[in-house]
Amino acid sequence: MPQPTVDRGATPSSTGFPGPLAPAEMRTSNMSLLLRHLRRHGDRSRAQLAAETGLSKATISSLAADLTERGLVRDGRLVRGAVGRPGLPLTLDGAHVTGVGVEIAVDYLALTAVTLSGITVRETLTTVDAAHLGLDAVLDRAAELTRAMLRSLADADASCVGITVAPPGVIDYAQGMLRFAPNLGWRQVPLVAEFAARLGPLAPPVRLENDAKLAALAEFARFEGTDVVDMLYLTGETGVGAGIIADGRLMRGWSGFSGEVGHLPLDPAMTLCNCGRRGCWELIVGLDAFLRLVAPDPADPLRDPAAPLEGRLHAIRQRVDAHDEAAMLALETITQHLSTGLSVLVDVLNPRAIVLGGYYAHFGDVILPGLAELLAQRRMDAGSGVELSTTRLGMLATARGGALLALEDVFDNPSLVPSRP
Amino acid sequence: MPQPTVDRGATPSSTGFPGPLAPAEMRTSNMSLLLRHLRRHGDRSRAQLAAETGLSKATISSLAADLTERGLVRDGRLVRGAVGRPGLPLTLDGAHVTGVGVEIAVDYLALTAVTLSGITVRETLTTVDAAHLGLDAVLDRAAELTRAMLRSLADADASCVGITVAPPGVIDYAQGMLRFAPNLGWRQVPLVAEFAARLGPLAPPVRLENDAKLAALAEFARFEGTDVVDMLYLTGETGVGAGIIADGRLMRGWSGFSGEVGHLPLDPAMTLCNCGRRGCWELIVGLDAFLRLVAPDPADPLRDPAAPLEGRLHAIRQRVDAHDEAAMLALETITQHLSTGLSVLVDVLNPRAIVLGGYYAHFGDVILPGLAELLAQRRMDAGSGVELSTTRLGMLATARGGALLALEDVFDNPSLVPSRP
Repeated sequence: MPQPTVDRGATPSSTGFPGPLAPAEMRTSNMSLLLRHLRRHGDRSRAQLAAETGLSKATISSLAADLTERGLVRDGRLVRGAVGRPGLPLTLDGAHVTGVGVEIAVDYLALTAVTLSGITVRETLTTVDAAHLGLDAVLDRAAELTRAMLRSLADADASCVGITVAPPGVIDYAQGMLRFAPNLGWRQVPLVAEFAARLGPLAPPVRLENDAKLAALAEFARFEGTDVVDMLYLTGETGVGAGIIADGRLMRGWSGFSGEVGHLPLDPAMTLCNCGRRGCWELIVGLDAFLRLVAPDPADPLRDPAAPLEGRLHAIRQRVDAHDEAAMLALETITQHLSTGLSVLVDVLNPRAIVLGGYYAHFGDVILPGLAELLAQRRMDAGSGVELSTTRLGMLATARGGALLALEDVFDNPSLVPSRP
Repeated sequence: MPQPTVDRGATPSSTGFPGPLAPAEMRTSNMSLLLRHLRRHGDRSRAQLAAETGLSKATISSLAADLTERGLVRDGRLVRGAVGRPGLPLTLDGAHVTGVGVEIAVDYLALTAVTLSGITVRETLTTVDAAHLGLDAVLDRAAELTRAMLRSLADADASCVGITVAPPGVIDYAQGMLRFAPNLGWRQVPLVAEFAARLGPLAPPVRLENDAKLAALAEFARFEGTDVVDMLYLTGETGVGAGIIADGRLMRGWSGFSGEVGHLPLDPAMTLCNCGRRGCWELIVGLDAFLRLVAPDPADPLRDPAAPLEGRLHAIRQRVDAHDEAAMLALETITQHLSTGLSVLVDVLNPRAIVLGGYYAHFGDVILPGLAELLAQRRMDAGSGVELSTTRLGMLATARGGALLALEDVFDNPSLVPSRP
């Protein structure tokens, strides 16, 4: 399982230099270096690349030829260098290489295709009621949408190098399984195999990744070029999870389970959770808790899981705009509980920025000011406040992150992309 | 403030490649690459280095000459290469370059000097009662010990490139200040300036770093060559803090405050803490909590802060070995409270290994089995248990980490070391 990484081009002192590599790994790493260099700095002549990377000109020429054959770079327009002969610059040629992200959520399916240069070229968002449809029908539907996207990419001469699926539960990375989806009751689903079987033998490789980690990857792109390299993304669905970017890189933890914050023991009432523990944080800050606070009557249409979530949130937003007391009080309670858990995460992780996703993003104007104040009250580190915001990527954040993650493999190892005919 | 990093030489896919660098930074980075390559792989001929790094032979020769002049590498014994002429191998020559770490704790002063090749060449541990002595006298004493160590290093032709001081409280990194030492009442101490003034104008640069982060750095060296790249170190003094190694690198957080776990709100009694918050974890798992449990009578000599801590812990160890009921019960309570906080940290960080330092290290055989069981009960990630252990570095862990951190600057930027006459 390749480790997702985000290269933010931080200074050498903050990232350290790469681990010294075995000889066999050097060519791949140098191709990777070149590709990332072009992504960050834009077009570069071979002479410039040699000067800037310290690689020999012969090495640069050989690597460039290789990358060109794979359709990852091409010769750009002629530029005149400061000294010597003008050189043809290399330019990143990502148009023919894409990654695809697929989020299977409790309420919807989201798909996104992104090119090597980071441009979103396809997007699909479909409401589903996964609990009602059942596992097989949901997978059928997700695979059908994916096949359609792959066909459409192929028609545009854009091949897909990998698919990342974000399932609505706990992943077994080693086995490619969805171990447990607490809010759907699905258990031990061999998701990679099931999905790959539905896509057919010619489809690109499928991997699984956690929704919060993927949304964090997608969101972090917003901070490109800023000094924010420590970021926390909090999802806000029925479940709550965190994606952690530390020093510019996605933090996965040993077995991929970093950021499992939804089950921190922070509910003083110690209510029993679907996960088997008591007092889990998501029981007091998750979507269900919020809906119960806004609409205490279980028969309230706002509580109907078959109704599209966006519509229900829109209706609540209207109540908030009309200063409906129950809705405002609900947000106040959620804000209070959010601050308890977030201050734990601030103590442990010391992020520069916290981004709230999910349903929180619909109420940022109401939640964020109070949250900032509550966090400030608990702060040890008086000189520096954390920057709070809500996501702008909406329900496509996770799918976009999935596409970016699939593409990171190419930046890590450009030889994954075959030579073009 | 340079960012401390640990280069574990992880695979390219787990660390990503370095951020592409501006041309001016490349020479420094390549010198750094060469130095780390030699540290990891041992002696290498120039031809091997060129083949393995992809740098041109001319670049390697020039960098090697530069590093030799600075006394960081030297020509080793003749070796015969597989093909071609035999080449003189380069070898890391760290003997003349050292880093020094100084821990100013509530109960003791610890100093360590380590060479570029990671060998500890000087160590000092002195009991002090900082609260009784007062700030100035403690700094005088620490500076006196440091000066003596620097003189002794100079006599052995080993220059010190930097000094890391670990103060007993919250650091203001930007100002080089000890902002607040809750257990001593010291506030706003310009520690870098005070220490540097006592060392005189010819002394190497002084920086501050948190004790838990430094101990984590020192401890992490134990996992060299293993697949453990996600580690958590927990200090156990009057205060409790965590040092986090994520994917082989020290996690500092935005402003250096990651791992401030001592003040997580985990004490159900919500007792008021010196920090101003209530319910802080260290109030129920810190050294004071433990001593109160073992010796409820405040007049018990075990509670006397003027008595050397090691002696008191030794006395408690004897009681434990004799199965003294109060002592065993105290450890059971501490274990229970440790598990609450550690399971939070496991959820957030998903470490492979947790190392307990401080007083916990004296009772690992009693604490660890129960702790492992309690953590397993709460685990979401059923397939994988975290590896628990206690430190073997004793009270010198932090000082050793400080020395290593000072040396990381040389690995990041070898040109910090001047050419030798």
